[in-house]
Amino acid sequence: MNLFPENLTRLIQQLNKLPGIGARSAERIALYLLRADEAEVKRLAELILQVREKVKNCSRCGALTETEPCAICSDPRRDSSTVCVVEKPTDIISIEKTAVYKGKYHVLGGKISPLSGVGPEDLRIAELEERILKENIREVILALGADVEGDATSYYLAKRLSGKGVRVSRIAHGLPAGGGLEFADQVTLSRALEGRREITET
Amino acid sequence: MNLFPENLTRLIQQLNKLPGIGARSAERIALYLLRADEAEVKRLAELILQVREKVKNCSRCGALTETEPCAICSDPRRDSSTVCVVEKPTDIISIEKTAVYKGKYHVLGGKISPLSGVGPEDLRIAELEERILKENIREVILALGADVEGDATSYYLAKRLSGKGVRVSRIAHGLPAGGGLEFADQVTLSRALEGRREITET
Repeated sequence: MNLFPENLTRLIQQLNKLPGIGARSAERIALYLLRADEAEVKRLAELILQVREKVKNCSRCGALTETEPCAICSDPRRDSSTVCVVEKPTDIISIEKTAVYKGKYHVLGGKISPLSGVGPEDLRIAELEERILKENIREVILALGADVEGDATSYYLAKRLSGKGVRVSRIAHGLPAGGGLEFADQVTLSRALEGRREITET
Repeated sequence: MNLFPENLTRLIQQLNKLPGIGARSAERIALYLLRADEAEVKRLAELILQVREKVKNCSRCGALTETEPCAICSDPRRDSSTVCVVEKPTDIISIEKTAVYKGKYHVLGGKISPLSGVGPEDLRIAELEERILKENIREVILALGADVEGDATSYYLAKRLSGKGVRVSRIAHGLPAGGGLEFADQVTLSRALEGRREITET
């Protein structure tokens, strides 16, 4: 027997498909939407539809944007000689939150993963090479994940970009801030040792 | 600085208002909606709008319904001489899930709460009295919460309905199923003692 009216059941099912929303949360949200302020609910539904129309990927760097090119690409105060290569558009947001990076970005759109059938030709690597040629880029910082695919993609890119007149670096891997040695796994700790840096007196 | 495009930020803010959805979940859901299958996302937005139009309260019992009267009110197999009084339409669903109750329902629309300014005249009590007169109801089962307002409302209703030719009962309060005595608070345990029932050999 169906306990909820048909449309309510459908809404619950649809909400249940969202990431992190279980059956109970979906029920709770659906019942909330039934009673909530009508203008608020309308706004939510409209934004869900609008966001897909208005938010696109920047044709140059691949970031999420409503303007073309995106705010970062078109910002003259940002250092255009440095490009940070990331996997997903949202990785840009993670890096921007640190507020320490002042260069530009390039979204690869994935990582090389033979098991998932993702090869170099599926990523925005040719676009990166074109930008290196045209935009007078001097350093490419690889900020991919510290997993197997991130490693493979980083090594592949370093090789492919060598001889193109750009310095290729990779963000450091090591102990996370605030983490004691007892919480670090072996791989993290061995990478932290490998990546050790001399302390110079200043 | 605004890290997300404007409409995405707005969507995240709107999602953040939903019950149980924090800032991180809202971000995750918004980014999911940006990439998810377009038909699915449209369906979700439409259902959010539709559900308010189509799902109403049954004019007789107050349950959530798309038909008038609701499926339970119009079901001839259900015992119309018994009415279970609940606070909210969703309480009906909780009781229906047990599949042991075969009577009808009546939604009060709240509990008497002087502190929140909710008096008997704000609840659907007059409607209940009218139904008792017209529908040949013989038993009214009060299934309100076991809190102070639930208690007060139950006693008020029992008094008001006395002499109207109906039996008024209240659902039992006691140990929850599967719960040991060590997990029960004092009030629950004292109510469980008060509500003790003789074990008869069968």
